[in-house]
Amino acid sequence: MNILKLSALSKKEINDIIDLAEEFKNGKKVNYNHEKTIANLFFEPSTRTHYSFDMAALKLGCNTINFDGSNSSLKKGETLYDTIKTFEMFGVDALVIRATENEYYNSLINNINIPIINAGDGTGNHPSQSLLDLMTIREEFGKFEGLKIAIVGDVKHSRVAHSNIEIMKRLGMEVYISGPEEFREDGYDFKNLDDIISDMDIIMLLRIQRERDAKLEKLTNEEYHNLYGLNSERVNKMKASAIIMHPAPFNRNIEIADDVVECSKSRIFKQIQNGVYIRMALINKVLNK
Amino acid sequence: MNILKLSALSKKEINDIIDLAEEFKNGKKVNYNHEKTIANLFFEPSTRTHYSFDMAALKLGCNTINFDGSNSSLKKGETLYDTIKTFEMFGVDALVIRATENEYYNSLINNINIPIINAGDGTGNHPSQSLLDLMTIREEFGKFEGLKIAIVGDVKHSRVAHSNIEIMKRLGMEVYISGPEEFREDGYDFKNLDDIISDMDIIMLLRIQRERDAKLEKLTNEEYHNLYGLNSERVNKMKASAIIMHPAPFNRNIEIADDVVECSKSRIFKQIQNGVYIRMALINKVLNK
Amino acid sequence: MNILKLSALSKKEINDIIDLAEEFKNGKKVNYNHEKTIANLFFEPSTRTHYSFDMAALKLGCNTINFDGSNSSLKKGETLYDTIKTFEMFGVDALVIRATENEYYNSLINNINIPIINAGDGTGNHPSQSLLDLMTIREEFGKFEGLKIAIVGDVKHSRVAHSNIEIMKRLGMEVYISGPEEFREDGYDFKNLDDIISDMDIIMLLRIQRERDAKLEKLTNEEYHNLYGLNSERVNKMKASAIIMHPAPFNRNIEIADDVVECSKSRIFKQIQNGVYIRMALINKVLNK
Repeated sequence: MNILKLSALSKKEINDIIDLAEEFKNGKKVNYNHEKTIANLFFEPSTRTHYSFDMAALKLGCNTINFDGSNSSLKKGETLYDTIKTFEMFGVDALVIRATENEYYNSLINNINIPIINAGDGTGNHPSQSLLDLMTIREEFGKFEGLKIAIVGDVKHSRVAHSNIEIMKRLGMEVYISGPEEFREDGYDFKNLDDIISDMDIIMLLRIQRERDAKLEKLTNEEYHNLYGLNSERVNKMKASAIIMHPAPFNRNIEIADDVVECSKSRIFKQIQNGVYIRMALINKVLNK
Repeated sequence: MNILKLSALSKKEINDIIDLAEEFKNGKKVNYNHEKTIANLFFEPSTRTHYSFDMAALKLGCNTINFDGSNSSLKKGETLYDTIKTFEMFGVDALVIRATENEYYNSLINNINIPIINAGDGTGNHPSQSLLDLMTIREEFGKFEGLKIAIVGDVKHSRVAHSNIEIMKRLGMEVYISGPEEFREDGYDFKNLDDIISDMDIIMLLRIQRERDAKLEKLTNEEYHNLYGLNSERVNKMKASAIIMHPAPFNRNIEIADDVVECSKSRIFKQIQNGVYIRMALINKVLNK
Repeated sequence: MNILKLSALSKKEINDIIDLAEEFKNGKKVNYNHEKTIANLFFEPSTRTHYSFDMAALKLGCNTINFDGSNSSLKKGETLYDTIKTFEMFGVDALVIRATENEYYNSLINNINIPIINAGDGTGNHPSQSLLDLMTIREEFGKFEGLKIAIVGDVKHSRVAHSNIEIMKRLGMEVYISGPEEFREDGYDFKNLDDIISDMDIIMLLRIQRERDAKLEKLTNEEYHNLYGLNSERVNKMKASAIIMHPAPFNRNIEIADDVVECSKSRIFKQIQNGVYIRMALINKVLNK
């Protein structure tokens, strides 16, 4: 079986994966005794996702092979399929793949006979990131239904945001988009952050890449931060029970103030911690099928 | 003991290595329980060979250390010998080395006291590649004696071709060279591919690097493919029992047509699979001596 | 507990670490059975130190995660703290860190809750290197008290030299600085090498980087070698019991003659060997606390 995009998983399947991740977090042990090998094939760099999967596989007692696809035979003109097929032929038991092309896996899966876990494709899907976000939310609130979330930042270019929004709505959450007007996108409910912040259960920040918009690029970091950043003044307007999330890496004092990163409402580093347990659940799931 | 070049191995030794590789393929287990460490020292990039050795060592329950020599102290002026001696001093149990200099090991082996497996030197020797080719041939035909092979492409610059030709002749095979006239080399029996294709048991393609010849560089990919590439029309002229091989990575629609790569005659991905078992046999052999 | 700089360790603690390293050298086995994971975070390249720590962790039966910080999210503007905190959140059990900033750890340690072993910071401290030097000296002479050492080369820019000098003096050794006048530094006892060589127990060479001084840069390698290099003529003036050390990588025929590198007085490769045992002792020490 493959884990390619969250939209292919039912609500029950999503909750089952989070349940398994929670079991790992609570000490459940699975040990493949180095009889299984996971290949992490990263065709673009991604420290956090890559090493999180690596750690997850190691904690399950798997061997790992770490392939940096930006430094490889691909430069000699080899196709993505041929590189991936090569690792199947090596006898690895599952593939974790990050690639730049949207839904790269559609052209592969019929000819690859081992499980693929998608670790991010283009601007499209990033299921393990979405699942760790959902795990962190469910841990906090015990449910999804009725929760209000504002996703703040460049939704348009975010690998994370699109698949998150689809699944969050499906799980009964109210999703708002916020941040600079320049990032407004059709089909999404755009609001001014200061208008809605006191009503939100979750403020989910995205990484800002100001170079994507000429107008934003002209702002200094300080101006940007004052206009759109989550500073302690804005945090003070949040509900007592509300939390702050960010997929990281984050820009301190641009989209988030230095003193907010580890404030009592922040779950940013908890997301990173949960990510390893989600990835253990995903690897365990595909190896068992 | 070292595995440096195939010409140093007797026919019996070669068949014994292939026998051991077949045993691993059939499920033989050897587990060093992480008490042995293999260092893969790659002074030039080579995805396929590097990860194949890595996988082989992991399947034997060895630790692996993966050293990218293009990003290292060598840049600070350290000699190849000093880098290799350093890894010996670390206490690793065997070295897998790829280096650009022809027969780099001649100047090292007297002062290095742990086994070296040569993973390719300059344009010279690449014993594990030759052995996986021979394993694939023996699996197919059950013998070497009398088999006719055409090696198609730039023999002159091929790490693989020269050591393959020597050992194939020694094993009783008839070896022909083919491809563009520009790659013709003295001392080898050069033929036009279309003249001999129907009589060959094996068509072994080499990776084309057209930039090595000014005349070839002027051809479009399509022209090159029509003149010299293995397309389905040429495949249809092959004997019913004949097979296609390629050391990979290959250029689709240049030296080989897209639809030939995984046709019923192709053993290209099987070669990659066999490569791991050959490397398990080599590592096991040097650790046991 | 952390291992950050040697000046924080008492003479007894230093001797205890060396004792434990000697036990590992004599065959002591500790096996964490892959239940512990060490992350090697190298924010600047260092082949020798990096792989030595990797080997040490593997010999203790730990998993290792190897992070090349020059090719990472740091480029996206992430702070050193945030990267390091991320690895803590992954659930690794100890961090081995090399970074360019002097005493980078001062700003981190209050917020990082797993052990840090400093693998070198800026021009400041490199405790595992100093300890392997001391182990090599103690193995040779059975003591430190009263030994005379000349450190030859660019003390000013040497990560190794400063922490070595502090601890060597504290252990009762007589420390002299030598080499080109350009490297003379206030507060250190500078001597001409040829004046003191016959009286020294240890000649410790440093790696020469002539580009750091305009006058030195003008010398050819040969001129430099004749003026300041350790050649066999100078070696012949050394005491019968005296030894030669170098932290490596070394420049053959610049600071050290080719035929001196592995002469009977040289302990250069023994230092590399001892380095793995010292690092096993350090990792074992922090994991047990």
